[in-house]
Amino acid sequence: MKKYVIIVAGGSGTRMNSAVPKQFMELKGKPVLMHTIEKFADTLPDAKVIIVLPEQLTNDWKALCTKHDFSIAHELAAGGETRYHSVKNGLVLVPDACLVGIHDAARPLVSKETILGAFETAEKWGNATPVVAVSDSLRSVRGKENTAVDREHYRIVQTPQCFHSDLLRKAFLKEYKPEFTDDASVLEAFGEKINLVEGNRENIKITTPQDLLLAEALMQQH
Amino acid sequence: MKKYVIIVAGGSGTRMNSAVPKQFMELKGKPVLMHTIEKFADTLPDAKVIIVLPEQLTNDWKALCTKHDFSIAHELAAGGETRYHSVKNGLVLVPDACLVGIHDAARPLVSKETILGAFETAEKWGNATPVVAVSDSLRSVRGKENTAVDREHYRIVQTPQCFHSDLLRKAFLKEYKPEFTDDASVLEAFGEKINLVEGNRENIKITTPQDLLLAEALMQQH
Repeated sequence: MKKYVIIVAGGSGTRMNSAVPKQFMELKGKPVLMHTIEKFADTLPDAKVIIVLPEQLTNDWKALCTKHDFSIAHELAAGGETRYHSVKNGLVLVPDACLVGIHDAARPLVSKETILGAFETAEKWGNATPVVAVSDSLRSVRGKENTAVDREHYRIVQTPQCFHSDLLRKAFLKEYKPEFTDDASVLEAFGEKINLVEGNRENIKITTPQDLLLAEALMQQH
Repeated sequence: MKKYVIIVAGGSGTRMNSAVPKQFMELKGKPVLMHTIEKFADTLPDAKVIIVLPEQLTNDWKALCTKHDFSIAHELAAGGETRYHSVKNGLVLVPDACLVGIHDAARPLVSKETILGAFETAEKWGNATPVVAVSDSLRSVRGKENTAVDREHYRIVQTPQCFHSDLLRKAFLKEYKPEFTDDASVLEAFGEKINLVEGNRENIKITTPQDLLLAEALMQQH
């Protein structure tokens, strides 16, 4: 099946305490978003790439592409109010009967194995979400009560979350709810069972300055 | 109340793929364990420090103290089969009617605020456990089923977990269970309500080579 990748770069970067939006922050001399696009272009050279970007950043992005001589083909879609709305805007550019992976722009360290594994499982079973084990102790908090929970019963969710495009588009016809923190949760609310696949621990989401330092350190290793 | 700190350095370092146990790995030219001890000695200069170390590492530790001219006073206790058993061995050296904080040797980046906050709350209410918010999406897994959960209802647990020594010692009279992944869970099984206090996000547990890189990057900032 034909493959599409929607890279969601809708963040405004307020958590980075920085004037530069986080998807444009430099990692080894290049915007985070370019690293992320390159990883998908290397892993799935035939896939079509769609970048969802806040409209007010379009000109900045084009200037960065010129500055860094960035030539990987991609289409742009406009960012929405929430992640749900951004993905919905990206889906408009995806045809029926293909596979679509939705990925966070702020996760440049996704591995080839994670990408390939998620697309393969989605092709077979309709959807796939990469997860990793929880390495810290967890406590559950409800109001004033809190109790220990068994971390073996939980997984940390990553991206790319991959889907048959028809299925995902149908799920996105449902009205937005604040519980939709990722794309799997939208599909789940539509009644589908979610298939988990193995992610990679380095596939962190860069949301704070310390995450950026970690990402730099991890890239130094490779 | 008189304060004691038990620093649990029982790990054998197998997860680091390294011949050097993780508590002895060098961070900015010094074993991780020394950084951790220094943080407590700076924050609570009057506290007594107890290090729980596997017995076969005692001579290596003494050699490292000589090499690094490390002179912060501390007592040694023998590591046990699990964390529970290690802490129990350390508690033997703690008198009644004082406060005791149990801390992971592999968390050198604990902040002064986290330490002071946990000891203060424990002095007032009997116990305190530092936690931070969960920044990733979570899924719950039971057998073949998995579902989205609201990460707002969960917290990541850190150390130092602080207690009235009498209360903790009584709780540790209970027989060991595999669910005892930290000290708060032992106290909870004894029927006590656990008080949560704010931890600090940098207070990571160094368990992999990538954590060591992150810790180095974070220390560079300070």
